[in-house]
Amino acid sequence: MRRLYHNTLSPMARKVRVALSEKRLEYEIVIEETWIRSESFLARNPEGEVPVLEEPAGATICDAGAICEYLEEVYPDPPLLGSDPRHRAEVRRLVAWFDRKFNREVTEPIVQEKLLKRVVSGGAPDSRLIRAGRANVHTHLKYISWLIDRRRWLAGDVLTYADITAACHLSLIDYAGDVPWDEHPQAKEWYALIKCRPSFRPLLAEMVPHIRPPRHYADLDF
Amino acid sequence: MRRLYHNTLSPMARKVRVALSEKRLEYEIVIEETWIRSESFLARNPEGEVPVLEEPAGATICDAGAICEYLEEVYPDPPLLGSDPRHRAEVRRLVAWFDRKFNREVTEPIVQEKLLKRVVSGGAPDSRLIRAGRANVHTHLKYISWLIDRRRWLAGDVLTYADITAACHLSLIDYAGDVPWDEHPQAKEWYALIKCRPSFRPLLAEMVPHIRPPRHYADLDF
Repeated sequence: MRRLYHNTLSPMARKVRVALSEKRLEYEIVIEETWIRSESFLARNPEGEVPVLEEPAGATICDAGAICEYLEEVYPDPPLLGSDPRHRAEVRRLVAWFDRKFNREVTEPIVQEKLLKRVVSGGAPDSRLIRAGRANVHTHLKYISWLIDRRRWLAGDVLTYADITAACHLSLIDYAGDVPWDEHPQAKEWYALIKCRPSFRPLLAEMVPHIRPPRHYADLDF
Repeated sequence: MRRLYHNTLSPMARKVRVALSEKRLEYEIVIEETWIRSESFLARNPEGEVPVLEEPAGATICDAGAICEYLEEVYPDPPLLGSDPRHRAEVRRLVAWFDRKFNREVTEPIVQEKLLKRVVSGGAPDSRLIRAGRANVHTHLKYISWLIDRRRWLAGDVLTYADITAACHLSLIDYAGDVPWDEHPQAKEWYALIKCRPSFRPLLAEMVPHIRPPRHYADLDF
């Protein structure tokens, strides 16, 4: 059986979970608390991060980007990476935008301070970082709206890894209650389309220990 | 003419420069001081980062990862990404290792504090961050040695983007004088092989304004 080492607090692991479902691949989940840094997990991925994918034939693939590219090469249907080199370049640019820029400016500060600290260390959240994350999310929601004004999905006419990546980051920020959807109706409409996909539903049912999401989090009509 | 928006302080831009040369593609360089955030450059790449590649036929490709994948798709010879899906997954895992983990633990602190601050702001370097970067570089040089003990190049039998990415990050740290080569002879031997490639020579001739590299920096026999 295919196996995904996963943690719901990782936007990268969330992305691979959705991608596997979009490609209709069966898998079982192993929840990995990466902060414990177990020897057996470090032997699988010396970086110590989720996601890690173990294929039935024995290949172990580490790193969300490497896994997504691998899935596209080995299971090309349905395509999630675009249709030609220029389109794929645009998908990859936007994936990098969310996995690097959005991650640094929004996901890391909010998830670290509001969720991870409560789950792992119990330390006091740094409200300065949380405020910075909350301010930054507006820029990104505006950018999503700008793209959706011009395209059906973020990178063009069809759903791609760009949409899945962006939605997975936003879903974590939404879990923390920090996405101002009502101020960004176009981005909200785009997210609503992703939220109701069967691939996204199991993600929204995952709970972070001891922390409840806001009521609208898993609600399709939010 | 193909055009690369470049800055020698960016390990990602360095990588694309080397990749273009390995693939024997001609290009001209436009030096972009990304910290100035010029409107015309932001119109090319809203993220405001180098590298950006403008293709002769008009395509503009942003983000080093997207550019490297694009080059491999459009100019597959010589291959730099591996020969089959599992090999490519290993190349991409190592590229992500250096562009994310090495970058955060070594390149960003050292380049920011020792080079960028002198070029841009003139602010005082934070010696705590420099010490952290210098301590972290050992772990990565050990990892390179461990890989080279088992493989001819980092990801297998042939030179790939994994080697180019790692070498470009290390070249910047070497410019700052902070690679303890003598303590890691296997990593040094691997780097010596890359240093003498024609694709790498022009990179080693680039100077950071007002800052001289150590004498061994561009020396093939270091």
